[in-house]
Amino acid sequence: MAVEEKSTPEDVRAHVAALARDARAAGRVLAASTSGARNGALRAIAARLRASAASLQTANAADLDAGREAGLDEALLDRLALTDARIEAMASGLEQIAELPDPVGSIAELNPMPSGIRVGRMRVPLGVVGIIYESRPNVTADAAGLCLKSGNACVLRGGSEALRSNQAIAECVTAGLVEVGLPAAAVAVVDTTDRAAVGALITLDDWVDVLVPRGGKSLIERIMREATVPMIKHLDGICHCYVDAAADLDMAERVVMNAKTQRYGTCNTLETLLVDAAVAEALLPRLEARFKAAGVTLRGCERTCAVLPDIEAASAEDWDTEYLAPILSIRVVNGLDEAMAHIERHSSGHTEAIVTNHHPRAERFLREVDSSSVMVNASTRFADGFEYGLGAEIGISTDRLHARGPVGLEGLTTQKWIVMGEGHVRE
Amino acid sequence: MAVEEKSTPEDVRAHVAALARDARAAGRVLAASTSGARNGALRAIAARLRASAASLQTANAADLDAGREAGLDEALLDRLALTDARIEAMASGLEQIAELPDPVGSIAELNPMPSGIRVGRMRVPLGVVGIIYESRPNVTADAAGLCLKSGNACVLRGGSEALRSNQAIAECVTAGLVEVGLPAAAVAVVDTTDRAAVGALITLDDWVDVLVPRGGKSLIERIMREATVPMIKHLDGICHCYVDAAADLDMAERVVMNAKTQRYGTCNTLETLLVDAAVAEALLPRLEARFKAAGVTLRGCERTCAVLPDIEAASAEDWDTEYLAPILSIRVVNGLDEAMAHIERHSSGHTEAIVTNHHPRAERFLREVDSSSVMVNASTRFADGFEYGLGAEIGISTDRLHARGPVGLEGLTTQKWIVMGEGHVRE
Repeated sequence: MAVEEKSTPEDVRAHVAALARDARAAGRVLAASTSGARNGALRAIAARLRASAASLQTANAADLDAGREAGLDEALLDRLALTDARIEAMASGLEQIAELPDPVGSIAELNPMPSGIRVGRMRVPLGVVGIIYESRPNVTADAAGLCLKSGNACVLRGGSEALRSNQAIAECVTAGLVEVGLPAAAVAVVDTTDRAAVGALITLDDWVDVLVPRGGKSLIERIMREATVPMIKHLDGICHCYVDAAADLDMAERVVMNAKTQRYGTCNTLETLLVDAAVAEALLPRLEARFKAAGVTLRGCERTCAVLPDIEAASAEDWDTEYLAPILSIRVVNGLDEAMAHIERHSSGHTEAIVTNHHPRAERFLREVDSSSVMVNASTRFADGFEYGLGAEIGISTDRLHARGPVGLEGLTTQKWIVMGEGHVRE
Repeated sequence: MAVEEKSTPEDVRAHVAALARDARAAGRVLAASTSGARNGALRAIAARLRASAASLQTANAADLDAGREAGLDEALLDRLALTDARIEAMASGLEQIAELPDPVGSIAELNPMPSGIRVGRMRVPLGVVGIIYESRPNVTADAAGLCLKSGNACVLRGGSEALRSNQAIAECVTAGLVEVGLPAAAVAVVDTTDRAAVGALITLDDWVDVLVPRGGKSLIERIMREATVPMIKHLDGICHCYVDAAADLDMAERVVMNAKTQRYGTCNTLETLLVDAAVAEALLPRLEARFKAAGVTLRGCERTCAVLPDIEAASAEDWDTEYLAPILSIRVVNGLDEAMAHIERHSSGHTEAIVTNHHPRAERFLREVDSSSVMVNASTRFADGFEYGLGAEIGISTDRLHARGPVGLEGLTTQKWIVMGEGHVRE
């Protein structure tokens, strides 16, 4: 099946199109399969991953060697490595997905209408999901598992530096599908490092129903520019926390520290802190001490710097920057409206939080801030499919159509209307 | 505000962008407004439409005169005309929308999570809706009403032949909004016939959240090709009805006749009839007599023509044609699987029905046919927002993401996650 690396873009496109077309046909079989069959496949794949640890690590070692030769940095090499623990995590992740309720085929209601027909909606798979991701090979198993559970076929295009690892994982997936009698083509792993494969996958409108791009900003931006297939995605996570005049300052300190420092590189990490002027002098020095100890650089607006003269001044650019690093921008505002105006202008629509004990302002913040997650008295780090009880997460969306916020199995489905009559006709 | 007809495409783009930007700001006010205010605006607009019947008809007469001069055909002129009855229908339609439940702000559930946070989803407007439509000026009031009710601002771009009528309706809308203290910019009617306005509206990603194109196939195809803003749409309505071997033939005759002849020009009208070979000889002659009386031309596959030697032979093209006319293509198939294979290949994913008394085949058809509406023993003509109990309809979607099938007020909203904590942080 593999295409030669030197083949033309047309050959690559034809190859990816063939994978997607076969995935479409396999998807029809998945959509009509029982939960039991799909869960059986997930468990069979998990068992094969565990049993194949040695061959997975051989393939992975070849990727790591090639990566070192190509001069990949240590952080990338670390993400690429398939350790024993990561292989076990892939396998147990699939078993956990098997335990989740099946979203496919459920009919929430079937209501009688004045005409006599009964009308409801049945949840069905999206069809073929195209997933484009970067170095972590475990995404191959995770994404395949979520798509399989939700009755979707998928075409996976991982990073070129992980090609051998991804193919070794794909062999386990294929074997697991075949073992339970489901079509192997339901999970296709693009087996070429040619970049034309991405360009093909994102424009195969006839065969791919939705894209889930997972990766750095430049990857997402490229896909947004070129894709004709609709997608579920987020570009930036510029998250805000607003500490209101009526905040409990101990709570504010705890929430802000957690939102910024629990992990620096995630999309739900706090990037800009907004502080009501009324509590700036009481709160900011306490935070400065804590952040200094944590090694976080602070950048403040003029009013912040008046309270904290030792910190850097923020530039206009800071308010629009997702640092993904131990840096925090701070701005002092005059009350809720100024805070919400700042968020409206600078937020990426991912996650915003307010810390306050004032009920009407908490309610206004919840209602009026237009982001995929809006929180009261909680750390932005909670914006996550597992923390929200979805049991799994294929990604986080800041789009307004279809799925918004953390996307679990339901976001990988759609609904169709069903109508039950007894020979009813329209008058 | 009007731009000169001879201005450059850049001027037109800047003009439409300014409308959309102002709509965005006005939409924030709408989103935060009470149901009472929005319903009050709908009723105020209805009253103004009734009170302005004379001036609406003066503007409309000018459009009709210009249309006649330009040689528009009678069907188009008829769609363009604002009769007394149509003005009343616009007004009462808005009053009916005011009576519907408000979708905005509802929180279906708020569930405690293991961490202690409570998580739910709040329904919120999409933001700014761009609507592009053709000659019927009543769409201006209908679309404005649905957007307003669902808390969305909108930018409306009607057909150039209805410009004066649409502007006269827009004046009533604006006056009604202002009367209740809502921002006039929440409903913007593009006041230029320059075609560059459409090109601008469909690419204003920063200011327009979703497009709802309503019109003929060529309009939709142009927008699909050029738009960068996501859209809710359908292109074709090639609807099928499969009469199974176990059908009640009286019921089949009733359902098929209704699906084809109740109205010819609608997207949910039957275009292809599939008949199981076991009942072809019993059913087809009965249908031929009825369709002949109704003036419907039949085109059949070889096996159909063997039963009905007087009808035309269908060409390969017929199976992929939405006639929107008194023409029906008929194919005899060997059972359910062949019927579903035909649908899979030729359907536009709009609406398909089965007529059968055989329970397992009805269940399989419901589960396996992948269209926005799937029906058992009912006419495809029921695929409609009012018949489904939505109370209103902005359009019908054959897309898989977001809204599918008839789209009412809920389809014009999205959800955001809300998180309630008491200082919770992530471990």
